[in-house]
Amino acid sequence: MTVEKKKSDLAKEPGVRTKLFIADETIGLGKIDLLERLGEAGSISAAARQMGMSYKRAWFLLNSMQSGFREPLFVVKRGGSHRGGTTLTPLGADLIRRYRSHSDLVDAQSNEILAWMRSVQFER
Amino acid sequence: MTVEKKKSDLAKEPGVRTKLFIADETIGLGKIDLLERLGEAGSISAAARQMGMSYKRAWFLLNSMQSGFREPLFVVKRGGSHRGGTTLTPLGADLIRRYRSHSDLVDAQSNEILAWMRSVQFER
Repeated sequence: MTVEKKKSDLAKEPGVRTKLFIADETIGLGKIDLLERLGEAGSISAAARQMGMSYKRAWFLLNSMQSGFREPLFVVKRGGSHRGGTTLTPLGADLIRRYRSHSDLVDAQSNEILAWMRSVQFER
Repeated sequence: MTVEKKKSDLAKEPGVRTKLFIADETIGLGKIDLLERLGEAGSISAAARQMGMSYKRAWFLLNSMQSGFREPLFVVKRGGSHRGGTTLTPLGADLIRRYRSHSDLVDAQSNEILAWMRSVQFER
Protein backbone atom coordinates (compact mmCIF):
# COMPACT_ATOMS: atom_id res chain seq x y z
CA MET A 1 0.00 0.00 0.00
CA THR A 2 2.73 2.45 0.98
CA VAL A 3 4.74 1.58 -2.11
CA GLU A 4 1.71 2.05 -4.34
CA LYS A 5 1.04 5.41 -2.81
CA LYS A 6 4.62 6.50 -3.44
CA LYS A 7 4.40 5.34 -7.03
CA SER A 8 1.24 7.35 -7.68
CA ASP A 9 2.91 10.39 -6.10
CA LEU A 10 5.69 10.15 -8.65
CA ALA A 11 3.44 9.62 -11.64
CA LYS A 12 1.90 12.93 -12.64
CA GLU A 13 -1.86 12.99 -12.85
CA PRO A 14 -3.06 13.68 -16.41
CA GLY A 15 -5.09 16.84 -16.79
CA VAL A 16 -7.27 18.86 -19.12
CA ARG A 17 -7.09 22.64 -19.30
CA THR A 18 -8.97 25.22 -21.27
CA LYS A 19 -7.55 28.28 -22.96
CA LEU A 20 -9.62 31.23 -24.14
CA PHE A 21 -8.66 33.16 -27.27
CA ILE A 22 -9.85 36.74 -27.36
CA ALA A 23 -8.64 39.51 -29.70
CA ASP A 24 -5.20 37.89 -30.24
CA GLU A 25 -4.70 37.23 -26.52
CA THR A 26 -4.83 33.87 -24.76
CA ILE A 27 -6.22 33.43 -21.26
CA GLY A 28 -5.58 30.28 -19.28
CA LEU A 29 -5.68 29.20 -15.66
CA GLY A 30 -2.46 31.03 -14.71
CA LYS A 31 -3.72 34.46 -15.76
CA ILE A 32 -7.12 33.85 -14.17
CA ASP A 33 -5.47 32.86 -10.86
CA LEU A 34 -3.31 35.98 -11.03
CA LEU A 35 -6.31 38.22 -11.68
CA GLU A 36 -8.19 36.63 -8.79
CA ARG A 37 -5.25 37.16 -6.42
CA LEU A 38 -4.99 40.75 -7.62
CA GLY A 39 -8.61 41.26 -6.63
CA GLU A 40 -8.09 39.65 -3.23
CA ALA A 41 -4.71 41.15 -2.39
CA GLY A 42 -5.48 44.60 -3.81
CA SER A 43 -2.05 45.18 -5.35
CA ILE A 44 -0.05 43.77 -8.27
CA SER A 45 3.06 43.33 -6.12
CA ALA A 46 1.20 41.30 -3.48
CA ALA A 47 -0.48 39.17 -6.16
CA ALA A 48 2.88 38.61 -7.89
CA ARG A 49 4.50 37.57 -4.59
CA GLN A 50 1.69 35.09 -3.91
CA MET A 51 2.13 33.58 -7.37
CA GLY A 52 5.91 33.41 -6.96
CA MET A 53 6.58 35.68 -9.92
CA SER A 54 8.23 39.07 -10.39
CA TYR A 55 6.22 42.28 -10.40
CA LYS A 56 7.33 42.79 -14.01
CA ARG A 57 6.05 39.36 -15.06
CA ALA A 58 2.71 39.87 -13.29
CA TRP A 59 2.32 43.30 -14.86
CA PHE A 60 3.09 41.83 -18.30
CA LEU A 61 0.52 39.04 -17.90
CA LEU A 62 -2.20 41.37 -16.60
CA ASN A 63 -1.47 43.85 -19.36
CA SER A 64 -1.63 41.19 -22.07
CA MET A 65 -4.90 39.85 -20.64
CA GLN A 66 -6.30 43.40 -20.58
CA SER A 67 -5.46 43.88 -24.28
CA GLY A 68 -8.19 41.40 -25.16
CA PHE A 69 -10.95 43.56 -23.68
CA ARG A 70 -12.57 46.85 -24.58
CA GLU A 71 -13.19 47.86 -20.96
CA PRO A 72 -10.85 47.61 -17.94
CA LEU A 73 -10.60 44.39 -15.91
CA PHE A 74 -9.17 46.25 -12.89
CA VAL A 75 -8.59 49.81 -11.74
CA VAL A 76 -5.89 51.38 -9.64
CA LYS A 77 -7.32 53.70 -7.02
CA ARG A 78 -4.95 56.26 -5.59
CA GLY A 79 -5.45 57.86 -2.19
CA GLY A 80 -8.53 57.33 0.00
CA SER A 81 -8.75 55.71 3.42
CA HIS A 82 -6.80 52.58 2.33
CA ARG A 83 -3.97 54.52 0.68
CA GLY A 84 -5.04 53.33 -2.76
CA GLY A 85 -4.93 49.82 -4.17
CA THR A 86 -6.09 47.84 -7.15
CA THR A 87 -9.64 46.53 -7.40
CA LEU A 88 -11.33 44.39 -10.01
CA THR A 89 -14.07 45.91 -12.10
CA PRO A 90 -17.35 44.00 -12.52
CA LEU A 91 -15.94 42.90 -15.92
CA GLY A 92 -12.81 41.46 -14.27
CA ALA A 93 -14.88 39.61 -11.69
CA ASP A 94 -17.17 38.37 -14.46
CA LEU A 95 -14.20 37.01 -16.44
CA ILE A 96 -13.02 34.98 -13.44
CA ARG A 97 -16.51 33.66 -12.71
CA ARG A 98 -17.16 32.72 -16.33
CA TYR A 99 -13.76 31.06 -16.80
CA ARG A 100 -14.22 28.97 -13.64
CA SER A 101 -17.75 28.00 -14.51
CA HIS A 102 -16.70 27.01 -18.04
CA SER A 103 -13.83 24.96 -16.58
CA ASP A 104 -16.33 23.14 -14.37
CA LEU A 105 -18.39 22.27 -17.46
CA VAL A 106 -15.24 20.99 -19.21
CA ASP A 107 -14.20 18.98 -16.14
CA ALA A 108 -17.60 17.31 -16.12
CA GLN A 109 -16.90 16.13 -19.70
CA SER A 110 -13.33 14.98 -19.08
CA ASN A 111 -13.60 11.80 -17.01
CA GLU A 112 -13.38 9.49 -20.00
CA ILE A 113 -10.31 11.05 -21.61
CA LEU A 114 -8.60 11.39 -18.20
CA ALA A 115 -9.13 7.70 -17.42
CA TRP A 116 -7.76 6.81 -20.85
CA MET A 117 -4.69 9.04 -20.37
CA ARG A 118 -4.01 7.41 -16.99
CA SER A 119 -4.06 3.99 -18.67
CA VAL A 120 -1.64 4.88 -21.50
CA GLN A 121 0.70 7.49 -20.03
CA PHE A 122 4.43 7.00 -19.71
CA GLU A 123 5.44 6.02 -16.17
CA ARG A 124 8.75 7.37 -15.02
CA MET B 1 -23.28 44.21 -46.25
CA THR B 2 -19.88 44.03 -47.91
CA VAL B 3 -18.45 46.44 -45.37
CA GLU B 4 -19.85 44.45 -42.47
CA LYS B 5 -18.34 41.29 -43.85
CA LYS B 6 -14.95 42.97 -44.12
CA LYS B 7 -15.23 44.20 -40.55
CA SER B 8 -15.98 40.74 -39.20
CA ASP B 9 -13.04 39.39 -41.17
CA LEU B 10 -10.75 41.80 -39.36
CA ALA B 11 -12.15 41.15 -35.89
CA LYS B 12 -10.83 37.81 -34.68
CA GLU B 13 -13.45 35.35 -33.55
CA PRO B 14 -13.01 34.40 -29.88
CA GLY B 15 -12.24 30.74 -29.31
CA VAL B 16 -11.89 28.00 -26.73
CA ARG B 17 -9.20 25.33 -26.95
CA THR B 18 -8.34 22.34 -24.86
CA LYS B 19 -4.90 21.18 -23.84
CA LEU B 20 -4.13 17.75 -22.47
CA PHE B 21 -1.43 17.24 -19.85
CA ILE B 22 0.13 13.79 -19.82
CA ALA B 23 3.37 12.75 -18.11
CA ASP B 24 4.88 16.28 -18.24
CA GLU B 25 3.90 16.78 -21.90
CA THR B 26 1.17 19.01 -23.26
CA ILE B 27 -0.95 18.10 -26.25
CA GLY B 28 -3.06 20.67 -28.04
CA LEU B 29 -4.71 21.10 -31.41
CA GLY B 30 -1.44 21.78 -33.26
CA LYS B 31 0.18 18.49 -32.27
CA ILE B 32 -3.01 16.55 -32.94
CA ASP B 33 -3.29 18.08 -36.43
CA LEU B 34 0.35 17.21 -37.09
CA LEU B 35 -0.13 13.61 -35.96
CA GLU B 36 -3.20 13.28 -38.16
CA ARG B 37 -1.36 14.62 -41.20
CA LEU B 38 1.50 12.24 -40.45
CA GLY B 39 -0.95 9.35 -40.58
CA GLU B 40 -2.48 10.61 -43.84
CA ALA B 41 0.72 11.65 -45.60
CA GLY B 42 2.80 8.71 -44.38
CA SER B 43 5.98 10.69 -43.74
CA ILE B 44 7.18 13.31 -41.28
CA SER B 45 8.59 15.51 -44.04
CA ALA B 46 5.28 15.55 -45.96
CA ALA B 47 3.31 16.25 -42.76
CA ALA B 48 5.75 19.06 -41.85
CA ARG B 49 5.42 20.61 -45.32
CA GLN B 50 1.62 20.53 -45.08
CA MET B 51 1.75 22.25 -41.69
CA GLY B 52 4.22 24.87 -42.97
CA MET B 53 6.93 23.88 -40.49
CA SER B 54 10.44 22.50 -40.75
CA TYR B 55 11.15 18.78 -40.55
CA LYS B 56 13.13 19.46 -37.38
CA ARG B 57 10.21 21.26 -35.74
CA ALA B 58 7.75 18.51 -36.70
CA TRP B 59 10.12 15.85 -35.41
CA PHE B 60 10.52 17.75 -32.13
CA LEU B 61 6.75 18.09 -31.65
CA LEU B 62 6.05 14.44 -32.48
CA ASN B 63 8.86 13.34 -30.22
CA SER B 64 7.65 15.45 -27.31
CA MET B 65 4.09 14.13 -27.79
CA GLN B 66 5.42 10.57 -27.86
CA SER B 67 7.23 11.11 -24.52
CA GLY B 68 3.86 11.22 -22.78
CA PHE B 69 2.98 7.66 -23.75
CA ARG B 70 4.23 4.21 -22.81
CA GLU B 71 3.57 2.72 -26.27
CA PRO B 72 4.34 4.19 -29.71
CA LEU B 73 1.89 6.56 -31.43
CA PHE B 74 3.42 5.85 -34.87
CA VAL B 75 5.93 3.49 -36.44
CA VAL B 76 8.37 3.91 -39.28
CA LYS B 77 8.24 0.98 -41.67
CA ARG B 78 11.26 0.52 -43.87
CA GLY B 79 11.10 -1.30 -47.23
CA GLY B 80 8.01 -3.10 -48.55
CA SER B 81 5.97 -2.33 -51.65
CA HIS B 82 5.60 1.37 -50.78
CA ARG B 83 9.31 1.90 -50.04
CA GLY B 84 8.63 2.42 -46.35
CA GLY B 85 6.72 5.22 -44.64
CA THR B 86 5.30 6.19 -41.28
CA THR B 87 1.96 4.83 -40.08
CA LEU B 88 -0.03 5.56 -36.95
CA THR B 89 -0.46 2.80 -34.41
CA PRO B 90 -3.95 2.07 -33.05
CA LEU B 91 -2.86 4.14 -30.00
CA GLY B 92 -1.98 7.12 -32.21
CA ALA B 93 -5.29 6.90 -34.04
CA ASP B 94 -7.08 6.56 -30.70
CA LEU B 95 -5.40 9.72 -29.38
CA ILE B 96 -6.63 11.74 -32.36
CA ARG B 97 -10.14 10.33 -32.12
CA ARG B 98 -10.36 10.93 -28.36
CA TYR B 99 -8.94 14.45 -28.56
CA ARG B 100 -11.40 15.43 -31.31
CA SER B 101 -14.36 13.87 -29.55
CA HIS B 102 -13.41 15.61 -26.28
CA SER B 103 -13.09 18.91 -28.18
CA ASP B 104 -16.59 18.41 -29.55
CA LEU B 105 -17.90 17.96 -26.00
CA VAL B 106 -16.10 21.15 -24.93
CA ASP B 107 -17.41 23.07 -27.95
CA ALA B 108 -20.94 22.03 -27.02
CA GLN B 109 -20.39 23.71 -23.62
CA SER B 110 -18.78 26.87 -24.95
CA ASN B 111 -21.57 28.86 -26.61
CA GLU B 112 -22.24 31.00 -23.56
CA ILE B 113 -18.64 32.04 -22.87
CA LEU B 114 -18.01 32.59 -26.61
CA ALA B 115 -21.02 34.90 -26.90
CA TRP B 116 -19.82 36.80 -23.84
CA MET B 117 -16.28 37.13 -25.24
CA ARG B 118 -17.69 38.47 -28.52
CA SER B 119 -19.58 41.13 -26.57
CA VAL B 120 -16.61 42.35 -24.50
CA GLN B 121 -13.57 41.82 -26.72
CA PHE B 122 -11.33 44.62 -27.88
CA GLU B 123 -12.11 45.68 -31.45
CA ARG B 124 -9.14 46.78 -33.50
